[in-house]
Amino acid sequence: MARLAGMSDFTQLDPAERILMGPGPSTVPARVLRALGSPTLGHLDPQYIGIMDETCALLRRVFETENALTFPVSATGMAGMETIASNLVEAGDEVIVGVNGVFGARMKDVMERCGATVHAIEAPWGEIISDDAVAEAVQAHPKAKLAGVVHAETSTGAHQPLEGISQIVHDAGMLLVVDAVTSLGGHPVRVDEWRIDAIYSGTQKCLSCPPGLSPVSFSEAAMEVMDRRRTKVQSWYFDVSMLRDYYSGSGKRAYHHTAPVNMVYALREALVIALEEGLEARFERHRQMHHRLRDGLEGMGITYIPEQSLHTLNCVRIPEGVDDATVRGRLLGDYSIEIGAGLGPFAGKAWRIGLMGHSATVRNVDLLLAALREAMGR
Amino acid sequence: MARLAGMSDFTQLDPAERILMGPGPSTVPARVLRALGSPTLGHLDPQYIGIMDETCALLRRVFETENALTFPVSATGMAGMETIASNLVEAGDEVIVGVNGVFGARMKDVMERCGATVHAIEAPWGEIISDDAVAEAVQAHPKAKLAGVVHAETSTGAHQPLEGISQIVHDAGMLLVVDAVTSLGGHPVRVDEWRIDAIYSGTQKCLSCPPGLSPVSFSEAAMEVMDRRRTKVQSWYFDVSMLRDYYSGSGKRAYHHTAPVNMVYALREALVIALEEGLEARFERHRQMHHRLRDGLEGMGITYIPEQSLHTLNCVRIPEGVDDATVRGRLLGDYSIEIGAGLGPFAGKAWRIGLMGHSATVRNVDLLLAALREAMGR
Repeated sequence: MARLAGMSDFTQLDPAERILMGPGPSTVPARVLRALGSPTLGHLDPQYIGIMDETCALLRRVFETENALTFPVSATGMAGMETIASNLVEAGDEVIVGVNGVFGARMKDVMERCGATVHAIEAPWGEIISDDAVAEAVQAHPKAKLAGVVHAETSTGAHQPLEGISQIVHDAGMLLVVDAVTSLGGHPVRVDEWRIDAIYSGTQKCLSCPPGLSPVSFSEAAMEVMDRRRTKVQSWYFDVSMLRDYYSGSGKRAYHHTAPVNMVYALREALVIALEEGLEARFERHRQMHHRLRDGLEGMGITYIPEQSLHTLNCVRIPEGVDDATVRGRLLGDYSIEIGAGLGPFAGKAWRIGLMGHSATVRNVDLLLAALREAMGR
Repeated sequence: MARLAGMSDFTQLDPAERILMGPGPSTVPARVLRALGSPTLGHLDPQYIGIMDETCALLRRVFETENALTFPVSATGMAGMETIASNLVEAGDEVIVGVNGVFGARMKDVMERCGATVHAIEAPWGEIISDDAVAEAVQAHPKAKLAGVVHAETSTGAHQPLEGISQIVHDAGMLLVVDAVTSLGGHPVRVDEWRIDAIYSGTQKCLSCPPGLSPVSFSEAAMEVMDRRRTKVQSWYFDVSMLRDYYSGSGKRAYHHTAPVNMVYALREALVIALEEGLEARFERHRQMHHRLRDGLEGMGITYIPEQSLHTLNCVRIPEGVDDATVRGRLLGDYSIEIGAGLGPFAGKAWRIGLMGHSATVRNVDLLLAALREAMGR
C-alpha cells in the first residue's frame, strides 16, 4: 500500500485490552493511563516538585506511616528491595531472612550481594515463617542487624503475619525489613503500628498502576543505621543519602537523577483512586473477591496451596489431567484473560490468580470462573 | 463545593504544557504520550515480548550496531551507567575515566563503588579529553580493563570526539565505555564503526520519550569480559547475566523483574519517529537548529562556553548584569519555557539550552530568542 501523508511505515502499536489476573501487573484504570499520558514536566519544575511531594504524602497514607523518608524508587519493584539492602547492609553484616518462596530467596541473594552473611529461616514453599522459627533465629544470631520477611509471597500466595515477628525482632534490637510488593493496597500494611523499619512495594499490583516504580519507606531507626555507615553505599543509583534531600521536602532539591516524571503522575492518580475508595473498604473488597473466587474454584474441585492464603494472589493446584499451557492459552486467546503460571517447584502444577486493585471485581471473578470451566471442558 | 457524583475530592493532575529546552527531558510528542497511555500488557505476554523485541531491534538501528545485547535498562539514564560499571568491573580492577564535568566525575564515582581503582584523566570543565591525554593514560596504566568517556557532557555542552580515543584504547587492549545520554538521536553515535564496547543513553533527551529507561548496548568483547567474571555482579537488579535470556530473543524468556511495560511502548514509538525522520536528517536538523540558536544568541552578545559545542546542549555564559533566576523565572512564568541552570562551578554563571529531539524546531528557537530578549529587557 502506498504511504499516505501522516501515516507511518511502521506498524501501529496496538496492545490488546487484557483482563490481567496474573501475579501482576493488574489491569490499569483508564484514569491512571490518562494521567500517565499527561504532558511531561521537567523533573526540577516547581509544578513537578509539588506533584512529587503530593505523591509522597499519598504514599504515607497508603503505607499508614508518618515516616518522612517515604518515596517511589525510580525503577520497578525489585529495585526497592535492592535500595533497602544496599543502604542498610554493609560488608560483613549479619542478617536474618525468611525463605519460603522465590522472593525470600531473592532477598537472601540481594543481601549477600551487598556483602551480608545471611542466616536463612527456611520454610516449605506455601507455608509461612513461624514466630517460633524467628525467635530461634534471633537467639542463634544475636549480632544480626536486621530480619527480612516477605509479607505477600507472590510465588506461593502465602500471607505472612507480621505483628508477632515484629515484637521478636525489635526485642532483639534488630530492624524489621518487609517485602509488601503484592499486599500494599490490597491487604493492611500498617507500617507504624507494626513497627516496620524498611518496606518496599511495587506499583503494578494492588495499586493498579503500570510497573516502573517501587514505593519504599524507612523508619527513623533505619535512617540512623544509614547515618552510621562506615562505607559508601555500593550502588550510586539507589544511594538514599543522595536522594534524601530530593524527597524530604526540605526545599533543597539537589539534582540526583532525572525522575520518571510520567510514571509518578500515574502513581499519584492510582493512590488517589485507592484513597477515594478508602483503604479499609478496599481491603474488604479484596477479601470478598477472594472468597467469591475461592468458593467458585473449590466448587470445581480446585484447591488452594497455602493454608494462609493472600486475598490478592490465589495460588491453586492445577487439577489432575488438566494441561497448564492449554488452559492458559485458551484464557488468553479466547477471553484475553491473563492468569499466572507456577514458579520453581510449582511450574506446571499451580496457577497464580491475581485479584489485585482494579482487577478485583465481581465482573472479573465471575467471568474467570466461567472461562476456566470452558477452557477446562467442565 | 459539594462533591458531585463521579468527581474526586482530590485536585486533578494538570501539568503545564511546557516547551522543554533545558538539559532534559525534552518535549514529548503527542504520539509518544498516546503510546505511553496504551493498555498495559503482562510482561510475559507474547504480544509484549514482540513489542520488546521490536524495541530492541529499533534501538540497534539508532545505536547503528549489530550488537545482540542491546536493550533498555528498566530505570532512568544513570542506571545505564551503573549497569555497565557493575557488570564490567570487579573489585580490584583498574580503569581509566575522563573527567571534564559532572558526568565524567559521576562515572568515576560509580566505577569506584564497583570496586575499581580509577585513574582519572582530568580536563577543565567545558574542554574535551584530548587523544594525547588518553594515550598517556593508557601508557601509564597498561593494566586498565577499560576506558570511559562522556560523548556529550550535559553539564558543560562539550562534544567529545570518539574515533581517535577508540583507536588508542583498543590498541592497548582495553574496552571503550561511552556515555551517550545527551547525544543519542541528536548526534551520530556509531557504535559499531567507532568500536564502542559498552554504551548507555537516556530516553528523555534527543529521543523525546519521557524519562524512565536507559538504552544500553554491549559488544561481543564486553560480553566475553562478563562471561569471565570471577565474582557475582554486586547489583541484582542490574545483573546482565540474568537479563540476557530475557532480551536475547532466544525464546527463553526467564522472569527476572517486571518490565516497565508502558515506558517501553513509549520508547518504541519514539524510536519509530526518529527512524521515520531518518537518522542523518535528524542530525542535520539538530545541526541547523544549533546554528540558528547560536547566531541569535551571539547577536545578543551571549557567548558559548565549550569550544567544541554539542548541537543538542548549548551551554552559554550569562551576560554581566543579568540575573539568572529572574530570567529563567520569566521564561517559565510568562512563556512556559524551561531552560537549564548551570551546574557546579557554572551555577549562576551559565545557562544550558537544550535543542533535543522534538524540541529542536525553528518555532522553538525563534520563540526562545524573542522570549530571552524580553526577559533580559534587551
